[in-house]
Amino acid sequence: MAEESAQAVLDRLFRLIEQRRLADPASSYTAKLFHRGTHRIAKKVGEEATEVVIAALRGKRERIVEESADLMYHLLVLWADAHVRPHDIWAELARREGVSGVAEHTGRNEEDRD
Amino acid sequence: MAEESAQAVLDRLFRLIEQRRLADPASSYTAKLFHRGTHRIAKKVGEEATEVVIAALRGKRERIVEESADLMYHLLVLWADAHVRPHDIWAELARREGVSGVAEHTGRNEEDRD
Amino acid sequence: MAEESAQAVLDRLFRLIEQRRLADPASSYTAKLFHRGTHRIAKKVGEEATEVVIAALRGKRERIVEESADLMYHLLVLWADAHVRPHDIWAELARREGVSGVAEHTGRNEEDRD
Amino acid sequence: MAEESAQAVLDRLFRLIEQRRLADPASSYTAKLFHRGTHRIAKKVGEEATEVVIAALRGKRERIVEESADLMYHLLVLWADAHVRPHDIWAELARREGVSGVAEHTGRNEEDRD
Repeated sequence: MAEESAQAVLDRLFRLIEQRRLADPASSYTAKLFHRGTHRIAKKVGEEATEVVIAALRGKRERIVEESADLMYHLLVLWADAHVRPHDIWAELARREGVSGVAEHTGRNEEDRD
Repeated sequence: MAEESAQAVLDRLFRLIEQRRLADPASSYTAKLFHRGTHRIAKKVGEEATEVVIAALRGKRERIVEESADLMYHLLVLWADAHVRPHDIWAELARREGVSGVAEHTGRNEEDRD
Repeated sequence: MAEESAQAVLDRLFRLIEQRRLADPASSYTAKLFHRGTHRIAKKVGEEATEVVIAALRGKRERIVEESADLMYHLLVLWADAHVRPHDIWAELARREGVSGVAEHTGRNEEDRD
Repeated sequence: MAEESAQAVLDRLFRLIEQRRLADPASSYTAKLFHRGTHRIAKKVGEEATEVVIAALRGKRERIVEESADLMYHLLVLWADAHVRPHDIWAELARREGVSGVAEHTGRNEEDRD
């Protein structure tokens, strides 16, 4: 495969995921997930993140790639479910860069947020 | 801001993160995180994923965007720490599409994996 | 310290936690947590569980004990917040034993639950 | 069921779990979990914690009890796997009480720990 851009892959996946939002739950894994609701989608994001954490601790490079792909997929589903566009996330990341002048975590005081 | 592509934002962020890998831990949040080690980076990924889960359950659209940006940032750090390129994740996602013919979760039997 | 029973420690802790539920948020860490709400309590449970996972993967026995104590404490707060008594959990564990005849995970089909 | 103490339930469960540590993996869910290793046990703890978080956010009292029982069960397995006794956790909780004079979270500076 020629190197396809993140943009191309993520955009295409997101469009396909959005098409499944209102599809028959029996037609696909993703349609079923939307049908079950936000808490089932969120559960999958939590589980896949745990898998990424464990793969990283074990130093298993191949598993990190696989589990990160699983996590990204379910994040795209969660965003679609919440009517968030992937672009909103990239814009937020770019905005923070702009604010800090560097691509640095902005150190928001997490304890004070509600 | 004009719409910048996912590719452009993620590539630039990843390069900046990689530059911080060997920087003085006192120089930035990210350099400190690398210095502390894989388990601290993985901890942040787990925490930010929990925040995304909670924001989704609460239906807080703005918080979903913010927490997802936090999660993406720390995922990029975890990938850099494990010598995984973001492109490896997009290629894995594209590969699964190719295998299934549709952008569908491949339904690997998770219980049988070790 | 003489060996104090799980019952004695957990009961006393739970009573103290319940007393903090309506206390001035400025008076203690726990009172502040209740004041901030269920999502903040749940966030702490998610974070402490991630810490237990990481300590287990690293094989750090002392850290497993410390992080498990943190997790238990915040679980007690979550139960108090939801008007669940610790005894409800022990009764559920005992009930499953009774059902299966052995102290065995009952293998409920988690995929079919909503 | 008469009210059985936390001590009685947790002690009995822990003994049964320890017996499964070296049992034939085909003999039970728990024996299989031990056989698969620490990362599979840790994964279950992470997943069940996510379920507790979600049940709490949804305000589903019955689900909080069920998922908390699942979490406690897998925590006992994780402790057995790490050669930690449940009593070590209760003693740590009691120790913190003694130190602070109240059953209050001790506010260890989590950011400074490695």
